[in-house]
Amino acid sequence: MAHDFETPVADLLRVGDGFDLSALDRRSTPGWKHGKKAAKKALTERGERLSDLQERLFAEGRTGGTRSVLLILQGLDTAGKGGIVRHVLGMVDPQGVDLASFGVPTPEEEKHHHLWRIRRALPKPGQIGVFDRSHYEQVLVVKVEGLEPAETTATRYDELVRFDQKTVAADTTVIKVALMVSHGEQGERLAERLDRHDKHWKYNPSDLATRSKWDEYQAAYQQIFERTSTDEAPWYVVPADRKWYARLAVTQLLLDALESLDLTWPEADFDVEEQRRLLTATARSNAKPAKATKGAKKKKKKKK
Amino acid sequence: MAHDFETPVADLLRVGDGFDLSALDRRSTPGWKHGKKAAKKALTERGERLSDLQERLFAEGRTGGTRSVLLILQGLDTAGKGGIVRHVLGMVDPQGVDLASFGVPTPEEEKHHHLWRIRRALPKPGQIGVFDRSHYEQVLVVKVEGLEPAETTATRYDELVRFDQKTVAADTTVIKVALMVSHGEQGERLAERLDRHDKHWKYNPSDLATRSKWDEYQAAYQQIFERTSTDEAPWYVVPADRKWYARLAVTQLLLDALESLDLTWPEADFDVEEQRRLLTATARSNAKPAKATKGAKKKKKKKK
Repeated sequence: MAHDFETPVADLLRVGDGFDLSALDRRSTPGWKHGKKAAKKALTERGERLSDLQERLFAEGRTGGTRSVLLILQGLDTAGKGGIVRHVLGMVDPQGVDLASFGVPTPEEEKHHHLWRIRRALPKPGQIGVFDRSHYEQVLVVKVEGLEPAETTATRYDELVRFDQKTVAADTTVIKVALMVSHGEQGERLAERLDRHDKHWKYNPSDLATRSKWDEYQAAYQQIFERTSTDEAPWYVVPADRKWYARLAVTQLLLDALESLDLTWPEADFDVEEQRRLLTATARSNAKPAKATKGAKKKKKKKK
Repeated sequence: MAHDFETPVADLLRVGDGFDLSALDRRSTPGWKHGKKAAKKALTERGERLSDLQERLFAEGRTGGTRSVLLILQGLDTAGKGGIVRHVLGMVDPQGVDLASFGVPTPEEEKHHHLWRIRRALPKPGQIGVFDRSHYEQVLVVKVEGLEPAETTATRYDELVRFDQKTVAADTTVIKVALMVSHGEQGERLAERLDRHDKHWKYNPSDLATRSKWDEYQAAYQQIFERTSTDEAPWYVVPADRKWYARLAVTQLLLDALESLDLTWPEADFDVEEQRRLLTATARSNAKPAKATKGAKKKKKKKK
């Protein structure tokens, strides 16, 4: 690869002891000194590797494997969650991506515990699950808007940690990403949605009500980072004023997670030679014979 | 666009009166005379338009619209259904694609009518649903393998037609695509799966059992085309020995369906000027002000 992060980006973005959200420069590009153009090129390069590893994970899931990956995306309006889905997950086979968006609970969801809909959406073996918002809204919108008693909310942090631990114990690698835009940048992005006719549908007057509670939301995020970032399922806080940086950083986090799984192609659970013989026997005289050579040729090519 | 189909490909591939599957040349490329390289270029070009229309459909669904699109993919093993998902649907935003694969029914699915799991997987408003195999397996594998009494199977055709009619009546454009490979090409593709270690997971010894019933499956397809291709939900039979042709043809069918919806960007259901004023009032002195100009500039650019 032409360009790389100077320091492993996961180490730079992972929430550690004494993390202070208010000190985060949201226009910064931790670990990346090569600018925007190189970042876009690096994204495409990483996309190919990501796609390869995703297929291996998918293949593993199809052959009895139990592992999966879950990317949790949090962030205020305009933080770029949708852009991550489009530009990062859009680089891999749609068959291997299981996307769930969590908005205001439906009447049916309201009847259940808040984790009910989350549990149902966890990725199946072999899948890369993506949560666009997540169970963490319980300590964001629910908390800031006072939708449940404060005493109940206070118990949620431990509940969320336990939930993530169970998910990890069930062979899912959990990557929790918070995309953090600045107040100024959010203002610009909302203004753009108002200026462009093709973006009006993305705008909701209630976005301004949420924006007016900016400080409360920042405090809620700070508390999430302090109380729910664990070794098994750490939070990564991504400065998101520069979309190209956020996309590259999340791609790298996803790639790191997949690389750490040491994914190999599953072994055949059948006798390859026997199947070759059986297949050859199916050839019809009036059709082109099944040639073993074509595949062999392609295999060679791929190995180069 | 640089190159185009000579005749609308939908007209060439749509099943009409007297359709005879046995006469189909599966290496042919109906309507396309420009070869493989131009086809790949044309695919990328169409991908951009597809992506634009998909976003409009998605926006419509988000703002109260009820329309959706359903692409049904049928075909024997190795026909290229997965490749369509990857290379055609992979060109649009994953958020707008709702993919469902129908394999052997699970124990829970077995307890219900065969259309139960299908109904649950129908695309929501604004989505492009994709079925990798579908309710039509009821008159394919279920029929050929004799998994239900022949008298019951005989009633399925009308049931399937009614089901599709209901789906169309619920504002879903239904595109039924059958990818048809030749016996020889299937042999080559299975051989490749045996030859390549990274493709073993795609191979199943039972594929040969299915292949041994080639003629029965072809007859079952012929009957499907005769009995379930309707004006509201016609079948398109796509010669699939050349993957690049099948991908381009299906892209065109999808594009035609989306174009026919006359998708416009939803009108704002709020007072844009008022929201601009309210947004400007949220600016903080210590941050960059929300500039209305940036969006306006981008809008201009987009219009060029």
